[in-house]
Amino acid sequence: MSSVKIVEVGPRDGLQNEKTVVPTDIKMELIQRLVASGIQTIETTSFVSPKWVPQMADHEAVVKALPQVNNVHFPVLVPNQKGLENALACKVKDIAVFAAASETFSQKNINRSISESLQEFSAITHQAVQRGLRVRGYVSCTLGCPYEGHVPITQVVKVASALYRSGCDEISLGDTIGVGTPKTAYAMLKAVASEIPIEKLAVHFHDTYGQALANVFACLELGVKTVDSSVAGLGGCPYAKGATGNVATEEVVYMLQGSGIHTGVNLDKLIQAGQFICQYLNISNKSKVAIAMLAKNS
Amino acid sequence: MSSVKIVEVGPRDGLQNEKTVVPTDIKMELIQRLVASGIQTIETTSFVSPKWVPQMADHEAVVKALPQVNNVHFPVLVPNQKGLENALACKVKDIAVFAAASETFSQKNINRSISESLQEFSAITHQAVQRGLRVRGYVSCTLGCPYEGHVPITQVVKVASALYRSGCDEISLGDTIGVGTPKTAYAMLKAVASEIPIEKLAVHFHDTYGQALANVFACLELGVKTVDSSVAGLGGCPYAKGATGNVATEEVVYMLQGSGIHTGVNLDKLIQAGQFICQYLNISNKSKVAIAMLAKNS
Repeated sequence: MSSVKIVEVGPRDGLQNEKTVVPTDIKMELIQRLVASGIQTIETTSFVSPKWVPQMADHEAVVKALPQVNNVHFPVLVPNQKGLENALACKVKDIAVFAAASETFSQKNINRSISESLQEFSAITHQAVQRGLRVRGYVSCTLGCPYEGHVPITQVVKVASALYRSGCDEISLGDTIGVGTPKTAYAMLKAVASEIPIEKLAVHFHDTYGQALANVFACLELGVKTVDSSVAGLGGCPYAKGATGNVATEEVVYMLQGSGIHTGVNLDKLIQAGQFICQYLNISNKSKVAIAMLAKNS
Repeated sequence: MSSVKIVEVGPRDGLQNEKTVVPTDIKMELIQRLVASGIQTIETTSFVSPKWVPQMADHEAVVKALPQVNNVHFPVLVPNQKGLENALACKVKDIAVFAAASETFSQKNINRSISESLQEFSAITHQAVQRGLRVRGYVSCTLGCPYEGHVPITQVVKVASALYRSGCDEISLGDTIGVGTPKTAYAMLKAVASEIPIEKLAVHFHDTYGQALANVFACLELGVKTVDSSVAGLGGCPYAKGATGNVATEEVVYMLQGSGIHTGVNLDKLIQAGQFICQYLNISNKSKVAIAMLAKNS
């Protein structure tokens, strides 16, 4: 493998789980710094009701303030038809939809059965594709569910395939509660890749049990070319108090560089971007690469 | 692979890097708890001068207080001839010696050239083996050196082979400063395994750059059967302020259990052992598995 695409989810998945509401201009500076570091896909916000996620209340302002940079994509999460309409009104070019592989999680998290959610997201994806947008489909709970525990791989394959068939350009397979291990992650990805070309798949691991980077490595061995991650390991896990968020982007980039795989990312600039938002939030940086390199250079 | 041996190094490599000097009875309780969790090899102390490592000043008391348990090994580090004599006087059955793959590190860390250190350790190993002891040989700086940076793999193979030929029963390959990545770790292990049977090799990764567990996974793929780790991720890295220590034993055990690989370790008891020493030291637990599982059960 010669190159891997990083999908930076810090501004959305990361910040969404941070308590302090971040003002728009700080989010924009974070996004600008991430772009300057060379990251080419940044999930910036969610067109969700401010009632549910106050951190994402400024989604319109964020989207309007996004820099115009060639070859950089800024997907936004769209939870429903109303979100799509608002996103279209704001002229976004990339959206993401979000289904669960666990029935109970789907009911509790988005208040719909899996089958209802797939129907709705299928309609949303169809409209978006017709308008020339790119759609990313998330599958959550691919390696476990906070309510059901074990999630059958067949269920993951079913949901991922339905999203792909409905027109999603990329399917991101999420271990929402971070319980997976390299072998289970590998087996899940392999099963999904038997139905969907692996170039169309991404992995999205939370580091709740410290397994995320090992899981990423195992999936790279299988040929996955897109990895979701969060600068400074931003975010937490609402299902495990005190647990960390997504795998840190810095750790992924460091590992890929050590494997001679191109990412196009300048690690120093990336670390500075992460440190900027951690200082704003007054939280400790969760990237060990950042901690070690900042200590070395101080 | 059906089973992996964990070598717990928390009481020595871990505590050695913690500032607070731990009284002997607390160390003994930690060791007892580790034994109760099912770990069968625990590096307990170092027969080093208290002038250099005050944390290990009570090595005689520790060794004398060790529980007598069938099939459990308690290696102690022996830095020189005097250390060996003291260890023999205390009737230890397992020792460990420590050489570096980097010339500058060897000079600065143990005040001898690599070749002088190999000569001395060869003599120590020879005497120990004659007395019926088992000797573990550490090679440090296998993936990088704080002074020299890159360490050639040929140098690692040379030092490891010399220790093995001198009579060491097991060679532990250490990434002392935690800079390695899965690909570099795999390549290094593969090169050493071309000279020494892989059943005689162990991997010893520090998590300074968050890569340790991924490195362990990559090396398991190559067939390594022994993994060094430290409960609660005890320890730090004197070469990177704020950096973490060894890979946490909890993370390794969790990953192995998720792969259906037998370790003989009860994860809950292991977590309690780690939490015990963290509470004593008043430090936060560095094992994400421990944090997540303690939060879940609280």
